Amino acid sequence: MSTHRLADVAAHLQASIHGGDPDQIICGVAPIEHASEGQVTFLYDSAKLKHLAGCRAAAVVIPPKWVDQCLTACLVVEGDLKLAYARLVQLFEPKPSSLPSVHATAQIGNHCQLGKDVSIGAHAVIGEYVRIGDQVVICSGCVVGDKSEIDDHSHLYARVTLYPHVRIGQCVRVHSGAVIGKDGFGLAYDGKKWVRIAQLGGVSIGSDVEIGANTTVDCGALQDTIIESGVKIDNQVQIAHNVFIGAHTVIAGCVGIAGSTRIGRHCMIGGGACIGDHLTLADGVVITGMAMVTHSLSRAGVYSSGTGLLASHKWRRSVVRFRQLEKLFRRVTSLEKQNNGS
Amino acid sequence: MSTHRLADVAAHLQASIHGGDPDQIICGVAPIEHASEGQVTFLYDSAKLKHLAGCRAAAVVIPPKWVDQCLTACLVVEGDLKLAYARLVQLFEPKPSSLPSVHATAQIGNHCQLGKDVSIGAHAVIGEYVRIGDQVVICSGCVVGDKSEIDDHSHLYARVTLYPHVRIGQCVRVHSGAVIGKDGFGLAYDGKKWVRIAQLGGVSIGSDVEIGANTTVDCGALQDTIIESGVKIDNQVQIAHNVFIGAHTVIAGCVGIAGSTRIGRHCMIGGGACIGDHLTLADGVVITGMAMVTHSLSRAGVYSSGTGLLASHKWRRSVVRFRQLEKLFRRVTSLEKQNNGS
Amino acid sequence: MSTHRLADVAAHLQASIHGGDPDQIICGVAPIEHASEGQVTFLYDSAKLKHLAGCRAAAVVIPPKWVDQCLTACLVVEGDLKLAYARLVQLFEPKPSSLPSVHATAQIGNHCQLGKDVSIGAHAVIGEYVRIGDQVVICSGCVVGDKSEIDDHSHLYARVTLYPHVRIGQCVRVHSGAVIGKDGFGLAYDGKKWVRIAQLGGVSIGSDVEIGANTTVDCGALQDTIIESGVKIDNQVQIAHNVFIGAHTVIAGCVGIAGSTRIGRHCMIGGGACIGDHLTLADGVVITGMAMVTHSLSRAGVYSSGTGLLASHKWRRSVVRFRQLEKLFRRVTSLEKQNNGS
Repeated sequence: MSTHRLADVAAHLQASIHGGDPDQIICGVAPIEHASEGQVTFLYDSAKLKHLAGCRAAAVVIPPKWVDQCLTACLVVEGDLKLAYARLVQLFEPKPSSLPSVHATAQIGNHCQLGKDVSIGAHAVIGEYVRIGDQVVICSGCVVGDKSEIDDHSHLYARVTLYPHVRIGQCVRVHSGAVIGKDGFGLAYDGKKWVRIAQLGGVSIGSDVEIGANTTVDCGALQDTIIESGVKIDNQVQIAHNVFIGAHTVIAGCVGIAGSTRIGRHCMIGGGACIGDHLTLADGVVITGMAMVTHSLSRAGVYSSGTGLLASHKWRRSVVRFRQLEKLFRRVTSLEKQNNGS
Repeated sequence: MSTHRLADVAAHLQASIHGGDPDQIICGVAPIEHASEGQVTFLYDSAKLKHLAGCRAAAVVIPPKWVDQCLTACLVVEGDLKLAYARLVQLFEPKPSSLPSVHATAQIGNHCQLGKDVSIGAHAVIGEYVRIGDQVVICSGCVVGDKSEIDDHSHLYARVTLYPHVRIGQCVRVHSGAVIGKDGFGLAYDGKKWVRIAQLGGVSIGSDVEIGANTTVDCGALQDTIIESGVKIDNQVQIAHNVFIGAHTVIAGCVGIAGSTRIGRHCMIGGGACIGDHLTLADGVVITGMAMVTHSLSRAGVYSSGTGLLASHKWRRSVVRFRQLEKLFRRVTSLEKQNNGS
Repeated sequence: MSTHRLADVAAHLQASIHGGDPDQIICGVAPIEHASEGQVTFLYDSAKLKHLAGCRAAAVVIPPKWVDQCLTACLVVEGDLKLAYARLVQLFEPKPSSLPSVHATAQIGNHCQLGKDVSIGAHAVIGEYVRIGDQVVICSGCVVGDKSEIDDHSHLYARVTLYPHVRIGQCVRVHSGAVIGKDGFGLAYDGKKWVRIAQLGGVSIGSDVEIGANTTVDCGALQDTIIESGVKIDNQVQIAHNVFIGAHTVIAGCVGIAGSTRIGRHCMIGGGACIGDHLTLADGVVITGMAMVTHSLSRAGVYSSGTGLLASHKWRRSVVRFRQLEKLFRRVTSLEKQNNGS
């Protein structure tokens, strides 16, 4: 980890120092119950307030309301504490030590264009006519298909696969095992067997996008599958052909999005949710974990499905009753008629 | 993209040309609202009929009923339009440009048998006693286990893993990140800890099968896990040990199939569905998306589970009520008794 | 497959031989309906008892109660038959033939420590300051991040990725396509866009753990994500940052576990289940397949969610009624009031 002067940490967080030496060297971050001297910690959850008294950290990032209770130095943050925490840990993230270079074992096809300070790892394979921007990092074992483009400052972690015709914007991070641009799952039935429908589109990814480990994004049938800027996608997400994902939407792990579905901007899709094909979700839609989305949603809001968790012996009874619901409604209607008739 | 004469496109689709120059050169396919001169487009969705008047394409693939409304040249298809579309795009799919060869960095084990015109990409690793048929393509970064077989015209995209003893038929396509033949998840409890059950079977895959990106297929315990010919499997599907999948079954993304389950022929499994272990699904079963299959299905038909999507504040109430269903049924029964008794 | 004397097989299973030649050579294992001479088979499912009469195997592993019905030699097991089966197949699992060595194409970074008899496959890439124990196997195409540790006898199958700071105990098996140590999915919103929260922790994995193909385990935010000894994880499981999984817990395929959740020891999580973030599950909790866990579980027991599978036309009616449950409860309450009032 890198080290920083306390004053520099404060400046980076736009925080004010209370009671600390601006020149103290800070060598890391730790949770308040584990932080040792030389480390900085933070407090934004009142459940952890009890640890403040015994805290041994060099300084505590803290909201104004708790400053009085703090015996050590404080970095007082007026604004969003979670954002301050994001800035704090950013400061201590280890930087890759090696200088950018193209490893001797990397294979680079003909007609490629490489920007300045590009880093390409061992055993990576770059196709033909690939354009790679400045300061791009392509780690070991990646395979980049022909005619793909990776813009400045983007980072492919180890063992990413791009099929041909994938365009990636600036400052994008694609994690290991992700597969982008595989042809979509399109089939036509000829009366005897399924015939594959070739997929001629590509994938177009904006800037500042994150794509998780082992996530898959298929190419479009004729046009591109599109992921707009600022979208954040977790691990093991499946995005089918011709999907459109609006800017700044967040998608948690294990989500599946079926073909030609259009998801708005600033949406949040909970883990394990599945979204059907050819649907449109408005901007600002929130889907809770494991929900099954089978129709379009024209308004922002929070949507859910599922039954909630029960002890299995109770659950089994409710499942039987779920099956009989139609009948039950008729029984109640019939009771109501009796009562009204009587 | 390749180019074709309009007459050749028509012949490939078994379509008749209306009002076009058979010698016109066609250079691609595009949706009707985007197609430009030199491209061919298609119309099979009446919602897109409004774009026909302004269409600039060289020709429109169209059913007979709309020919009169078409101002440009038509390729009139009597049969299934989706199938014609599949044939159309096939014609314009880019062909890999490089000649088949074994890359200098590929590692090939002892006692392997390679067919004619085999292509093996950079950094691929082939084990021992592997048999590879004619015109097989094994892309960069693939790892093929000992004693595996890959029959003629099959294609492993970049970074596929085959464990030992995987047999793949003709014209099979396996996409990037797929892992085939990993030993099944078999455990026995010895009173203190879980003991792994070694898996001695392999995986046997028929012809004309498609296996999606990051899909996993485990080997059998003693016999092979079997995927019959014509099966089409999307991305991120998990197929456990000893599963049998009948010919021409289609499995959408994110499906999980537990051990020893037998799925019939011509089934369709919707995205995100999970199928329990040791079940049998008849031929022609259709499972809708995210359904949970917990018992065998002896008849063809469409099956579903789940609650449907609701606004979360309404959903929460229904979830509470789901828990109380057993009680509600009793209350209704009691009311009925009262009414009958009175 | 290796061959063994019948007496040695019996000793390995702690079984007694009835009516067989201890010196007979056994060359494999097969199910009772397929076993041929020279093979050993087993019988612990009464549904297969009908095959006993026609069985051609050299010997049958069998519980005492069925010995009288067996016409061939028996290996009689007093204890757990499934455990005996696990020991039996272990005996016949093929051993890798090649001697341990570091392949010429493997890339090994500076300052690494390699134990005795380490095997590193073709095109594997090992970072800097990596510590690898005795008899560790790292197969082709693996990428191991800086400062990682892999203890004695552990085995990374082909194309595994470890990010930096992953610590793996003894006798751990990690299957192909698994990605361990990717930074967790932490985000803070700055009013306009999502800011990534750097993840400074690692992953710590105990001994005798199994991690399935294409499974992902993220590193912790500040501390390690922890998987204790004896945990068995199937394919395509997603484990988010700061998760803790207690010893000897078993997790089936396609499970997702969200951030900071703590799972007890000796739990069993069924396939396709999702477990929300910041929850605590007690020791001995069993979650059935596809269940959605949205609250902590303080007691051992079996828990479920979902509606069960129905024919779709019936299911659709129940789904409509699920939506109306709140109203139905009110109608019943109103009927009860009427009846009590009358």
